[in-house]
Amino acid sequence: MRTAATIVRKAHSTTFDWQDPLRLTSALTDEEIAISNMAREYCQERILPRVLQAYRDEYYDRDILIEMGELGLLGATINGHGCAGVGNVAAGLISREVERVDSGYRSGMSVQSSLVMGGIDEFGTQEQKERFLPGMAKGKILGAFGLTEPNHGSDPGSMETVARPHPTKKGVCLLSGSKTWITNSPIADVLMVWAKLEGRIRGFLVERATAAPGTLSTPAIKDKNGLRASITGMIMLDGVEVPEENMFPDIEGLRGPFSCLNNARYGIAWGTMGALEDCIARARTYALERRQFKGNPLAKYQLVQKKLADATTDAAFGLAACLHVGRLKDKGLCTPEMISMIKRQNCDRALVNARNLQEIFGGNAVSDEYGIGRHVANLFVTQTYEGQSDIHSLILGRAITGVQAFC
Amino acid sequence: MRTAATIVRKAHSTTFDWQDPLRLTSALTDEEIAISNMAREYCQERILPRVLQAYRDEYYDRDILIEMGELGLLGATINGHGCAGVGNVAAGLISREVERVDSGYRSGMSVQSSLVMGGIDEFGTQEQKERFLPGMAKGKILGAFGLTEPNHGSDPGSMETVARPHPTKKGVCLLSGSKTWITNSPIADVLMVWAKLEGRIRGFLVERATAAPGTLSTPAIKDKNGLRASITGMIMLDGVEVPEENMFPDIEGLRGPFSCLNNARYGIAWGTMGALEDCIARARTYALERRQFKGNPLAKYQLVQKKLADATTDAAFGLAACLHVGRLKDKGLCTPEMISMIKRQNCDRALVNARNLQEIFGGNAVSDEYGIGRHVANLFVTQTYEGQSDIHSLILGRAITGVQAFC
Amino acid sequence: MRTAATIVRKAHSTTFDWQDPLRLTSALTDEEIAISNMAREYCQERILPRVLQAYRDEYYDRDILIEMGELGLLGATINGHGCAGVGNVAAGLISREVERVDSGYRSGMSVQSSLVMGGIDEFGTQEQKERFLPGMAKGKILGAFGLTEPNHGSDPGSMETVARPHPTKKGVCLLSGSKTWITNSPIADVLMVWAKLEGRIRGFLVERATAAPGTLSTPAIKDKNGLRASITGMIMLDGVEVPEENMFPDIEGLRGPFSCLNNARYGIAWGTMGALEDCIARARTYALERRQFKGNPLAKYQLVQKKLADATTDAAFGLAACLHVGRLKDKGLCTPEMISMIKRQNCDRALVNARNLQEIFGGNAVSDEYGIGRHVANLFVTQTYEGQSDIHSLILGRAITGVQAFC
Amino acid sequence: MRTAATIVRKAHSTTFDWQDPLRLTSALTDEEIAISNMAREYCQERILPRVLQAYRDEYYDRDILIEMGELGLLGATINGHGCAGVGNVAAGLISREVERVDSGYRSGMSVQSSLVMGGIDEFGTQEQKERFLPGMAKGKILGAFGLTEPNHGSDPGSMETVARPHPTKKGVCLLSGSKTWITNSPIADVLMVWAKLEGRIRGFLVERATAAPGTLSTPAIKDKNGLRASITGMIMLDGVEVPEENMFPDIEGLRGPFSCLNNARYGIAWGTMGALEDCIARARTYALERRQFKGNPLAKYQLVQKKLADATTDAAFGLAACLHVGRLKDKGLCTPEMISMIKRQNCDRALVNARNLQEIFGGNAVSDEYGIGRHVANLFVTQTYEGQSDIHSLILGRAITGVQAFC
Repeated sequence: MRTAATIVRKAHSTTFDWQDPLRLTSALTDEEIAISNMAREYCQERILPRVLQAYRDEYYDRDILIEMGELGLLGATINGHGCAGVGNVAAGLISREVERVDSGYRSGMSVQSSLVMGGIDEFGTQEQKERFLPGMAKGKILGAFGLTEPNHGSDPGSMETVARPHPTKKGVCLLSGSKTWITNSPIADVLMVWAKLEGRIRGFLVERATAAPGTLSTPAIKDKNGLRASITGMIMLDGVEVPEENMFPDIEGLRGPFSCLNNARYGIAWGTMGALEDCIARARTYALERRQFKGNPLAKYQLVQKKLADATTDAAFGLAACLHVGRLKDKGLCTPEMISMIKRQNCDRALVNARNLQEIFGGNAVSDEYGIGRHVANLFVTQTYEGQSDIHSLILGRAITGVQAFC
Repeated sequence: MRTAATIVRKAHSTTFDWQDPLRLTSALTDEEIAISNMAREYCQERILPRVLQAYRDEYYDRDILIEMGELGLLGATINGHGCAGVGNVAAGLISREVERVDSGYRSGMSVQSSLVMGGIDEFGTQEQKERFLPGMAKGKILGAFGLTEPNHGSDPGSMETVARPHPTKKGVCLLSGSKTWITNSPIADVLMVWAKLEGRIRGFLVERATAAPGTLSTPAIKDKNGLRASITGMIMLDGVEVPEENMFPDIEGLRGPFSCLNNARYGIAWGTMGALEDCIARARTYALERRQFKGNPLAKYQLVQKKLADATTDAAFGLAACLHVGRLKDKGLCTPEMISMIKRQNCDRALVNARNLQEIFGGNAVSDEYGIGRHVANLFVTQTYEGQSDIHSLILGRAITGVQAFC
Repeated sequence: MRTAATIVRKAHSTTFDWQDPLRLTSALTDEEIAISNMAREYCQERILPRVLQAYRDEYYDRDILIEMGELGLLGATINGHGCAGVGNVAAGLISREVERVDSGYRSGMSVQSSLVMGGIDEFGTQEQKERFLPGMAKGKILGAFGLTEPNHGSDPGSMETVARPHPTKKGVCLLSGSKTWITNSPIADVLMVWAKLEGRIRGFLVERATAAPGTLSTPAIKDKNGLRASITGMIMLDGVEVPEENMFPDIEGLRGPFSCLNNARYGIAWGTMGALEDCIARARTYALERRQFKGNPLAKYQLVQKKLADATTDAAFGLAACLHVGRLKDKGLCTPEMISMIKRQNCDRALVNARNLQEIFGGNAVSDEYGIGRHVANLFVTQTYEGQSDIHSLILGRAITGVQAFC
Repeated sequence: MRTAATIVRKAHSTTFDWQDPLRLTSALTDEEIAISNMAREYCQERILPRVLQAYRDEYYDRDILIEMGELGLLGATINGHGCAGVGNVAAGLISREVERVDSGYRSGMSVQSSLVMGGIDEFGTQEQKERFLPGMAKGKILGAFGLTEPNHGSDPGSMETVARPHPTKKGVCLLSGSKTWITNSPIADVLMVWAKLEGRIRGFLVERATAAPGTLSTPAIKDKNGLRASITGMIMLDGVEVPEENMFPDIEGLRGPFSCLNNARYGIAWGTMGALEDCIARARTYALERRQFKGNPLAKYQLVQKKLADATTDAAFGLAACLHVGRLKDKGLCTPEMISMIKRQNCDRALVNARNLQEIFGGNAVSDEYGIGRHVANLFVTQTYEGQSDIHSLILGRAITGVQAFC
């Protein structure tokens, strides 16, 4: 592994570095480099050794969030409440390092950090922030984000989950409905559930510990095709009581969940580049070590070199775009369409290139020990969640033309 | 399921049929239609219900080969020895129906039929044929084909497995070496092993029952990324004794295994089209049933229709090419390059389109119950085995230009 | 050039032929081979030498249609009236040979043969057939097909050209409106114009010779990006008188023009494969002759071989599909959706592959003497006319799903 | 056209701007914005009106270089000698604005600025700089760059042009050989010719005015498929005398011409994005104005929106990468591989997207008045010159793997 010193030194040399072909490191602050390197060391040394077996077994080790909390990786952009308060570029670099190991681990972190902590920080009351954020920053309280429903994926505005005022208990709502494909739901302590109250979408912090028996269940969804190192489940709400102090006071409509998603999507744009970079590194190593036909390494094949060149280019371009958007985000100049653009493009290019690189492994690709098949399966999921790519195409198309085409 | 009568009737109607858009059925004989339909009924009724759990568990039910044997599906193009003696088009239609369920099941059948039975029929002595083929046709004797080695995938000519004359037993060879990625090896009764005898590649029929303890082992390879409903393993040979009556008498060099592979690749070209057709059917159903945005089915999305149109076209074109090549094969006019062409193209197009269709399922694609993720994972493997697509590109490139480019 | 004898002999050999990689010739009748060869000889010897200068000058030599007429290439599938009465496969082979030289020449022929002669044969009165077909078969009477209007390309049902009964002359209509992108219009003797009569689309045979001065003009459109060896223009109708014996008696609505287009599209599917085959031949020759880096021919580059392999495969698959559809067409079993499928796929694949092959020429591709840039420019136009590919995608999508998505 | 004020204001707003979707303007200095805007005004007002006819006629108006000289656009990064001395980002922005009109105009400028002026500035003597640069900066002395030869495109190291010491005149070399595809050669006053002197590649400034009759000719190459608004020719050298003060003193081998090319390629990476942005603007306008099927604009088609979204994304990512590399270039941290990466990717993506956008125009795309066909034809040439994309793939592949694959 490269040390921080190596990275800084490389950033100012003038030789080509296949791991940083456009020398993006030169545009990072020393602090960002240090955070990135710290995250990288943790990920490579601590979670990489666990992922192969975890993926096989569909097992998510919740200690990972504790460990991340200890390093300050959770809710890292939040100021105060025990959070690190770093900039958006540093947060992106953390996502990249985690997803360099596995998209599932990044997903688990994204939900905790961007969706739930970010949502509480943006929309919560001071009391809510104080009650939840410090524990969440430590990974001791786990969160889940309940928006998607079985019949409403791309179109959450049609959600069926409802909140009704309790017929007798004043200041209490009863939530009913079901949410699905909810990362972390089976192990979450607090579930941020979006539901319609008097026809308007509102956000609720449902606490597992206080839910009456039979009113809340969060069954795991098993036998997934990808993201098997993360845990996914449903949220079944059958009249669960939520006191009004657990409701976000001011936010109504899709603006609330969309703002949370926006932050998470920003992290996905960075993260998928990390996964792609890992695919490049693995394919490059294989291509140099595997010899066929008169002892030449596969790396000598033009068809192999082209796959590596394409992937390396897309990773570099994708990271350059992320870096630029991250800087804008710090300045409050980032629009949701920019996030759609980098989320869509980076998921798509990571997936396409990972698949191309997988071909370099030939028949050996079918063995999970080479790791690349896992990235390919994960990256397909990243392309479909938090806005499937076609949906983002239509969001961008609408922004470009002013005409909507959602049928 | 469509009955034979329906299929024949449709073949002569003049309305568009999305399941047979170029009405290829009209170019089949009644016998071919009947065989196809019989295979389809078996596959849909008997093996489809087993595949989801089998794939999850990486379990291959060897009874499937017994059942296929009872229906005459094994070694179907062989004349005599209890085999059906059908034409190459009928055999292709069988592969298509099996792979419509799962590429792993087709792989298990291909190894038995094309690689092992086909090899014995083509290169074996009369005694070998009589000894093995009738039992293999019934699925009672299982075969495996040992060519690929850990260090020699695309380049089998560099194999390291050797056969040496036994130092004392006349007419006996000792085989040593290892083969990997061998479908069916852990359960096979007879292993067709290719090894170098005095520097020349020869074929041996290694029988598990008579191998001395410690000389033959066939460990399974687990945790595969695809083809999990088939069983795959290694063949470890440590001085296993093979009598000369188990050696192919006349065939030397790569011509032997390549001829076997040629037949198997022909079957893959048909089979992958069956898998793609199943993806189309599943995606079409999903697109018609899933409603988003004002209750419109996904099928109303132009971006969805394009994916379906592309896939349907590639399936129709791929099958038209297979059908044509099958007719040539019956006439002895088929060249290996034609097989490279249809194997490469159909694997590639099946994979690309299956991936595109998978996008239609959005986040739900991650659930294995929709079946399409399984096809995607399987089809990637078909693209890499029996000649990875890039290798076939270079085989074709050499045939077209007369210049070889294998470095 | 290959003689018929060579072709027949090759059709039954068992070596790979890059010019007929799936040996489709073996599925042709001797008559079809003879017709194809005759067309090929004419095209290579007579029109190929003219195309470079004609394309530069945007010049269409109308003698070409006379020559084609002499060879019986015009309206070749029509029975009687001086036409050859060949099958649809033979007609397709002719299109392929003409477009092997230039898509513009094939376009000029398609308009004469499929759109105008085909339309008269299908919808005309006996008198109309006798009056026009013999002269058209000889190339002495030239036709044009007026459907597309400036504001209505993909959606001809919204056409604005109208026919009104003459206020005083009984049995005479007055046509007014404008048509654009009309191949052959500036030189045509008879213009098949589709116009709305009492709100219903009807077909009229407008004869230039009898049009009153000022009522009909057919200005040429110059400075085209492609198809420069064909002539294209508008049809401006300002109260041109057409007697009712020049109207098709029974056909109403879009069924008339669509039926004509269907035949033309069938020819395009064949023709574009001829253009692609010419690109392959040119690129292969260049790759074998051009040497770079230590004297190796470009053909030794893997990246070059892949382009050739891809193109050769798509040409072979496209022709196999055309052949199959041609046989169905002869039997009356061909549906319009099949034509959409082969027109779209073959235009798209011809274009994509021609572009890839053009890259082989490097900087030299910019010179028009290599011919491939001309094919690339032409093939783009074939993709946009007679149904732009996206429109055919939606036609296919509707046929597959039963749901229409034309907004 | 947008004024500078508009641009600056937009740069700090928080609404999406399809013309600057990642708001890259916010990362520019005020000076860079001013230069970009000045260049844009000139290009849109002065050269855009000329390009349609110039392209048709293959005519290059050399006054354009005079005008550019007056605005300080030539050799803009050079310090002193009458040059503007701006940074590399400003220079890139100029290229983008010129190529927004036409790649041929940018090519003419690139040759003058990057190849010839840049080469003299980097490798020339003080006397050479003083003699040539001021006049070149004004566009009064025109330059051409002679490296490529008829038989040596991608592999200039094998060049055949030689310089021999004059048998009698001391300090004079005789140059013989031929160069081809030389932009500006027919009108150039000074030709930078690379030739082998005693086996080593050296650079010579050949002045047309002093060449003896019959020793130098620069015939134009006509009938080009693209870049028709630029002028291209050969350089035929038959013993032309060059005094040693016109030779670069210290530079030997390919390092000299490759350094010049590197600067030009950097400009191409920016320029092609300008061409792509113009295609986006044209396609967007067409899609909004053209109505089909019930009066809906084409912009409402999902298939159209996807093309726009893809192109807009690639333009934004490509510009972000250029901007980053430009900043590195100013700091001396840019490597040639970075230039290969952005030149290759931006040419490829500009071309692919321009082609996709061209489809939006349907049949109308064949008319040159829509301008997009011209960009498509031009962009193909940019992909093949100054390193065809496949060559850059192999340069990158070598940099990534350390293994070369040039056969």
